[in-house]
Amino acid sequence: MSKQPSATVQLACELIGRPSVTPDDGGCQPLMMERLARLGFNVEPMRFGEVDNFWARRGEEGPVFCFAGHTDVVPPGPLERWDTDPFAPTVRDGILYGRGACDMKGALAAMITATEGFLAVHPEHAGSIAFLITSDEEGPSIDGTRKVVEALEARGEKIDYALVGEPSSKERLGDIVKHGRRGSVTGKLRIQGKQGHVAYPQLADNPIHRAAPALAALAAEQWDEGNEHFPPTSLQLSNVDAGTGADNVIPDALTAVFNLRFSTEQTPEAIQQRVHAILDAHGLDYELDWHLSGLPFLTPTGELLDAGRDAIAAVTGLRTQPTTTGGTSDGRFIAPTGAQVLEVGPVNATIHKINECVAVKELDQLAAIYAEMLRRLLT
Amino acid sequence: MSKQPSATVQLACELIGRPSVTPDDGGCQPLMMERLARLGFNVEPMRFGEVDNFWARRGEEGPVFCFAGHTDVVPPGPLERWDTDPFAPTVRDGILYGRGACDMKGALAAMITATEGFLAVHPEHAGSIAFLITSDEEGPSIDGTRKVVEALEARGEKIDYALVGEPSSKERLGDIVKHGRRGSVTGKLRIQGKQGHVAYPQLADNPIHRAAPALAALAAEQWDEGNEHFPPTSLQLSNVDAGTGADNVIPDALTAVFNLRFSTEQTPEAIQQRVHAILDAHGLDYELDWHLSGLPFLTPTGELLDAGRDAIAAVTGLRTQPTTTGGTSDGRFIAPTGAQVLEVGPVNATIHKINECVAVKELDQLAAIYAEMLRRLLT
Ligand SMILES: [Zn+2]
Ligand SMILES: [Zn+2]
Repeated sequence: MSKQPSATVQLACELIGRPSVTPDDGGCQPLMMERLARLGFNVEPMRFGEVDNFWARRGEEGPVFCFAGHTDVVPPGPLERWDTDPFAPTVRDGILYGRGACDMKGALAAMITATEGFLAVHPEHAGSIAFLITSDEEGPSIDGTRKVVEALEARGEKIDYALVGEPSSKERLGDIVKHGRRGSVTGKLRIQGKQGHVAYPQLADNPIHRAAPALAALAAEQWDEGNEHFPPTSLQLSNVDAGTGADNVIPDALTAVFNLRFSTEQTPEAIQQRVHAILDAHGLDYELDWHLSGLPFLTPTGELLDAGRDAIAAVTGLRTQPTTTGGTSDGRFIAPTGAQVLEVGPVNATIHKINECVAVKELDQLAAIYAEMLRRLLT
Repeated sequence: MSKQPSATVQLACELIGRPSVTPDDGGCQPLMMERLARLGFNVEPMRFGEVDNFWARRGEEGPVFCFAGHTDVVPPGPLERWDTDPFAPTVRDGILYGRGACDMKGALAAMITATEGFLAVHPEHAGSIAFLITSDEEGPSIDGTRKVVEALEARGEKIDYALVGEPSSKERLGDIVKHGRRGSVTGKLRIQGKQGHVAYPQLADNPIHRAAPALAALAAEQWDEGNEHFPPTSLQLSNVDAGTGADNVIPDALTAVFNLRFSTEQTPEAIQQRVHAILDAHGLDYELDWHLSGLPFLTPTGELLDAGRDAIAAVTGLRTQPTTTGGTSDGRFIAPTGAQVLEVGPVNATIHKINECVAVKELDQLAAIYAEMLRRLLT
C-alpha cells in the first residue's frame, strides 16, 4: 500500500495493536476516551469488578444516539496458524488482518471517525451523541454493558437509539442488519439411574437407556414456527456424558446440557414447562437447572431502523435486510430500557477465527454509514 | 473362636494373607504347588508375559478332572471403609473376612483340602486329578487360562471335567451352579457430526441429535427370548460422551460404548449385523469397532453336572439349580476344547466389595462337595 491509510484504518490498527483478550481492555478504552474528550465529550470511566467500561456523552438534550460496543476480543488460538501476528495489524491487498479487526475494533474505529467527521460539519447538532463501551462482551457479560445500563437507569439517563457495532453483515457490508435477537436459555440436566454390572442389568437402572428416548424427543420437538421477525425456536444439545470408562459398568447417572434460542413466540416459562412435560412423560428421575442468558428483543420499526436502512442505501447502494438470527449481543441489555436497538457492522465471516480480517474499503464505508446515521437522526 | 479352624479355613487364611492384586500372584501359587507336590502331583509352572500360572496333574489316565481357578484378586478399594485389614484374614462370628475370601481363595483352599481328603481314602483313584490355576482372571485374561489351555492343546493334553471354583451360589451354598455362560461382545461407536455454534444449527450437524434415536432403538431392541438354558440376550450402553464443555458449541462427534451378553441363540456375526442395520436405518455417519470377549458355552447334561448336583444334595440337602446368568469366567477358555465345565463356589453376595467374606461352615461344606465329586467321578 503506497496510499496513506484512512483515519479509520489507522485507529483500527492502533486498537488491534493493544492486545485485549477478554476481559482485558489492554488500553483501548483510554485511547478512545482521549479522542472523545478532545471532541467535547463528557467521559466517564465505569469499572465494575475486573471489567473496564466507559460512558461518554456530548450534549445535554435528547434524543440520545449511543454507539455501543466492546474492546475485548476472543483469544487468538494457535499463533502458528496465523499468517501474521494477530496483535500486529497488517494490511495486505486491501484487507486488514488482526484479532478484533472485524469483531469489533474496526467498528469502534469507524464510530470514532464518523463522530469526528460529523462534528466537523455539525458541531451544533441536535440531541446527544453517546458511547457505551465495555471490555466484557466476549466473556460472562456480567460486569459490562449490563452494569452500565443499570447505572444509567439508576440516575434516570436514557438512551433513545443504540447503534451496536457487532459484525452483522453476511456477504457485503450492509446486506444484513440485526434489529433484534432471539432469547437464550440453557438447561443442565441430570438423569438419575442406578449403577450396576452389565451382566446383571435387572439389578441396575441404566440412565443412558432411560435418557436416549427423552433426548430424542427434545431434539425432535417443534417449539414454534417463528414469526415475521424471528426464525423458529431451536433447541440444541451441546453436551452429554455418562459412564465410568469401564465397558462393563452401567453408570449411575447421565448429564446433558442443552440451549434454546427462542423467538418472541416463547417465554422462558413456557419453554421450561414444555421441557419438563417431555421429561416427565418419559418417567425420568431427574434434576434440571436453568440459566436465562437473555430475553428476545426486537425493534420492529422506528427512526433508528429507517436511518440505518437509508444510510446503507446511500453509502453502498444496497437495500438492507433486517434479521434477528445469530447469537446474542449486548443489545439484549439495552433494549429492555425502551431504546431502539440496531446492529450494523462488517461482514462476519472471519469472527473468532484464525486470520480474522476486514476489508479496508468496508471500514471506510462503515464510518460513512455511521456518519450518515448521525446526520439523519441528529440534524 | 476357641475351636481350632479347619484345614480349609487355615489354608484360605494363608492365601488371603498373601496380597495378590491382579495380576500379582503374591506367592499363592508356590504355596498351592508345594501342597500338591507333596500329594504326588506333577507340578508345572507356566508363566506367560507377566502372569504366573501353573498346571498340576496326578495320574496318567483319563478321565482328567481339573480344578480351575485364580489366585489374583481385585483391589481392596478404600482401606478405611474395611472393618478389618483386607489382607489380614479375620474370623468373626463364624465368618471369614478378607479380600479374596469369596472370590476365590476360599474355593482354592477347598480344592486342595478336598484333594488331600480324597487321596487319603483313594490313593489309587481312577483317571487323573489336575489343577489349572492362573493369576490373570480379574485382569485382561490374556496370559492366563487361555494360554495354559493353548499349551495343553498343543501337546494333546485334554481336560474332561473342569470344575471352576467361582462363587456361583446366590443365597445358600449350592443353591445355584453355573453350567454355562453367556457370550460377551463390546462395541465402540463413534457417530460423526459437524461442529458449530448453537445459534447457527443449520451450519452444523448435531451428533447428539442424530445419535439419540439410534441409541434409544439399540436399548429397546429385543434380541431374542433366550432359551431353556439362557436368559434373553441383553445390550447395555455403558458409556456415552459428546461435547466440548462449552454450552453454546454443537460438538463434532458422539462416542458410545455398549456390551451385549448373548445366549446360544445368537452369534457375534448375527448381533453385529443387527446393530449395523439399526444404525444404518438411522442414516448415521459412524465408525464401530467390535471386541469379542467370549462365546457362549453350555454343558447341558453329563457326568460332571450329575456329580455336582448329587454332591450338593448329599452335603447340603439342596436341589441345585443350574443357570447361565451373570458375568463371564475362565470356563469360556476351557469349554471350547470339548470339556464339560461346571462352576460351583460360595455365595457371591460380597465379591469385589468392601468387607468381602465367606461363612466358615460354607467353606468346609464346599470342600466336602468337591471331595464327593472326586469320589463320584474318579472311583
Ligand atoms: Zn463482538
Ligand atoms: Zn473370580
